[in-house]
Amino acid sequence: MRRTLKITLSYDGTRFVGWQRQARGPHGARLRRGVEVEGDSIQGLLEDALARFEGGPVTAHGAGRTDAGVHALGQVASATVSFTHPPDTLVRALNAQLPEDVRVLEVAEAPPEFHARFSARSKTYRYQIRAGTAGDPFTRAFVWQLAEPLDVAAMRQAAAQLVGTHDFAAFQSAGTETTTTVRTIFRSDLREPDGLALLVFEISGDGFLRHMVRAIVGTLVEIGRGWRPAGSMAQLVDGGTRAQAGATAPPHGLFLVRVDYD
Amino acid sequence: MRRTLKITLSYDGTRFVGWQRQARGPHGARLRRGVEVEGDSIQGLLEDALARFEGGPVTAHGAGRTDAGVHALGQVASATVSFTHPPDTLVRALNAQLPEDVRVLEVAEAPPEFHARFSARSKTYRYQIRAGTAGDPFTRAFVWQLAEPLDVAAMRQAAAQLVGTHDFAAFQSAGTETTTTVRTIFRSDLREPDGLALLVFEISGDGFLRHMVRAIVGTLVEIGRGWRPAGSMAQLVDGGTRAQAGATAPPHGLFLVRVDYD
Repeated sequence: MRRTLKITLSYDGTRFVGWQRQARGPHGARLRRGVEVEGDSIQGLLEDALARFEGGPVTAHGAGRTDAGVHALGQVASATVSFTHPPDTLVRALNAQLPEDVRVLEVAEAPPEFHARFSARSKTYRYQIRAGTAGDPFTRAFVWQLAEPLDVAAMRQAAAQLVGTHDFAAFQSAGTETTTTVRTIFRSDLREPDGLALLVFEISGDGFLRHMVRAIVGTLVEIGRGWRPAGSMAQLVDGGTRAQAGATAPPHGLFLVRVDYD
Repeated sequence: MRRTLKITLSYDGTRFVGWQRQARGPHGARLRRGVEVEGDSIQGLLEDALARFEGGPVTAHGAGRTDAGVHALGQVASATVSFTHPPDTLVRALNAQLPEDVRVLEVAEAPPEFHARFSARSKTYRYQIRAGTAGDPFTRAFVWQLAEPLDVAAMRQAAAQLVGTHDFAAFQSAGTETTTTVRTIFRSDLREPDGLALLVFEISGDGFLRHMVRAIVGTLVEIGRGWRPAGSMAQLVDGGTRAQAGATAPPHGLFLVRVDYD
C-alpha cells in the first residue's frame, strides 16, 4: 500500500549546497554544472532519512529548489512511500535523523496525485536587508548588510510595480530551461518591522524563475541607492533583458517562507 | 594627553574562547588553566584593534568576563589611550578592523577613573531556553533546546526567590578567587515572549560569580522538570553548597544584555 506524504520543513541554508541533491562525479564528488561542490543538499538528507524507514530509495520533490545558502521557514516536500509510521511519529523520527539545522515541522497524509511543486498554488519568499548601521552579529547569516542607508520610499514604490502578470525574463539567470518567463505576482511589499532595524521584502506568486527573487532584490537596492528611478521596475517587468536589471542579491538574506495549496 | 574610552559592544560568542585574552604558552598556543585552547578572545581582538590606532599596546577591561560560547548584546569595555580620533569615527574604524561577529555599538568619552568592571552598578544577563518542541534551525546557536516540556510556573516561582541580598556560594564554580560570595539581585524573572516559543530568563544584579547565571539556570530547569521543588531555590541561596545546586547550563543560551553605571 503506497501513500503520499506532505512534509513541511525549515532549514538554515548556510552550510548546504541548496535544496537539490547533486549528481556525483566519477570519484564520488558532488557536481554542480560540472564543478565539484562541497556540502550536503536538503533533498539528499531528507531522502536518506526517508530511505531508512522505507528500506530502499525514496524520491522527495521540493516545492522550491532553494539555492546554496538560501533558507526555508516552510519548504514543502512530497514523497510516495510504503512504510506505515503515523505522521506524528515521523516528525520525531525524521528529526532524530536530520542535523539540527534542518527541522521537520509537520508530516501530513496527502492525496496520491499530490506533488509539492506542481500542486503549489502560491509561494512566498522573504528577503532581509539591513542598511546604514554597524550590523548585528546575531543575524548576519540571515541579512544582507549594506553600509549606506537606502531610499525606502522609492524601493516600496518599485516593489508594488511587480504585482500582476508580467514577463520576468529580465530577472532570470541564464542556463535555465523554462517554457515561459511569464509569472503572476499576487503580493510584493517592503516592510520595516518595529524595532528590528530591518527592511523585509516579501513576495508571493504562482511561480518564480531561477534567481528571480534575488535579481528583483538587487534591482530594488539599486533603486534605493538612487542609481535607478523607482519607475524603472515597471519597464523591466515587461520586456526588459537580464543585462538591464540589477545585480543578483546574495543568497543568505533569502527565505522560502511558505507554499500554499488548494 | 590620555583619555578614557567607554566602548559598548555586541558579539556572537559561538567561536570565541570568551571575553578574556588567553595567556600564550611556550609555543604560542593559548592556555586556559594550563590547557591549550583554540580561537580568539573578544578582549584580544579589541585590544589589537585599539593598538593599531595607539601605535602600541592597549589594555581593555571588560565589565563581564563572558565565558567561551557566551554572547553579548551590550558588553562594556574601558580603555585609556592617547590617540585623538573622535568617538563616531572610532565606531566605524574599529568595526572595519573587527570580524563581523563582533560589533562596536558605541564609543563614548569617560572620566579618567572610569573602569568598565569596577564602576558598574548593575549587570543584566539573559538566558534563552526552548522546551518540548522540534527546535528551530535559525536560533539553535542562541537557545538551550530541551526535548521535554517544563513546568514554567514552578520555575517562575523559583526565579523570584533569587531577588535580594544572598550568599550565592551554591552557584559558584570551583577555582575562583573572590573575597565574598554575597551578591544583590535586583530583578529575576522568567518570561514567555509572544509567538517565540521561548522561555527567557533575565537577571540583574550588582555582580555575578563565575558560572553563577548558568548554575542558576541549570537549577531552574531541574525545578521545571520536577526533580526539585520550586521552594528549594530559597534554601540554596542561603547556605547551600555547589553540590546541592543543579548542573551548569550550556553557555550558548546566555547573553550579557547590558551594564549600567551611575
